[in-house]
Amino acid sequence: MNGFSPVLQPPYYAVIFTAQLVPDATGYDEMAAKMADLAAQQPGYLGVESARGDDGLGITVSYWVDEAALKNWKQVNAHLLAQELGKTRFYSHYTLRVAKVGRAYDGPEGR
Amino acid sequence: MNGFSPVLQPPYYAVIFTAQLVPDATGYDEMAAKMADLAAQQPGYLGVESARGDDGLGITVSYWVDEAALKNWKQVNAHLLAQELGKTRFYSHYTLRVAKVGRAYDGPEGR
Repeated sequence: MNGFSPVLQPPYYAVIFTAQLVPDATGYDEMAAKMADLAAQQPGYLGVESARGDDGLGITVSYWVDEAALKNWKQVNAHLLAQELGKTRFYSHYTLRVAKVGRAYDGPEGR
Repeated sequence: MNGFSPVLQPPYYAVIFTAQLVPDATGYDEMAAKMADLAAQQPGYLGVESARGDDGLGITVSYWVDEAALKNWKQVNAHLLAQELGKTRFYSHYTLRVAKVGRAYDGPEGR
């Protein structure tokens, strides 16, 4: 279903990224779309889910087969530039958590 | 900062809940607010982050000290009712993942 990452057999890894956009985040949507496309081309990428409210607070969770895959993605050049722009221009605050998924369900019918 | 869960020392647990609301989800916001208040009163609760876009796709990540805490929350009576309403009335689809947080950062300044 649109917007959902496949519910795969754990274990796999999740990067939980929560970020507050600044009021004037012109150019952010384009950059985020490019990064989503680029992430999807990386080895070990499993999927991504993302939501942002009108207040500018957003959560993006990307899923990866293992820690090596998400570490490699962190170091991709265009992504390093995007990270820097995030820190210096687009985010007033963010948190990033790396977590190992142990169980996964979906529904309403699948639980 | 508003909307963020504290960046605590891992390990701890995250419940990543992604859900698509049906177009007519009257009453959902009130129920979600009550559940957020109730979750915050549970033993082992660490925090919550939540975002929903205009398309109705939302991500809520709640954080817990251990698996026992999140399992207990799953069984709280009012929460069981809310889960049932979610399945039968409010969500066209959802995924739920339980993950163990191993690393956490925040920024822009703290990374």
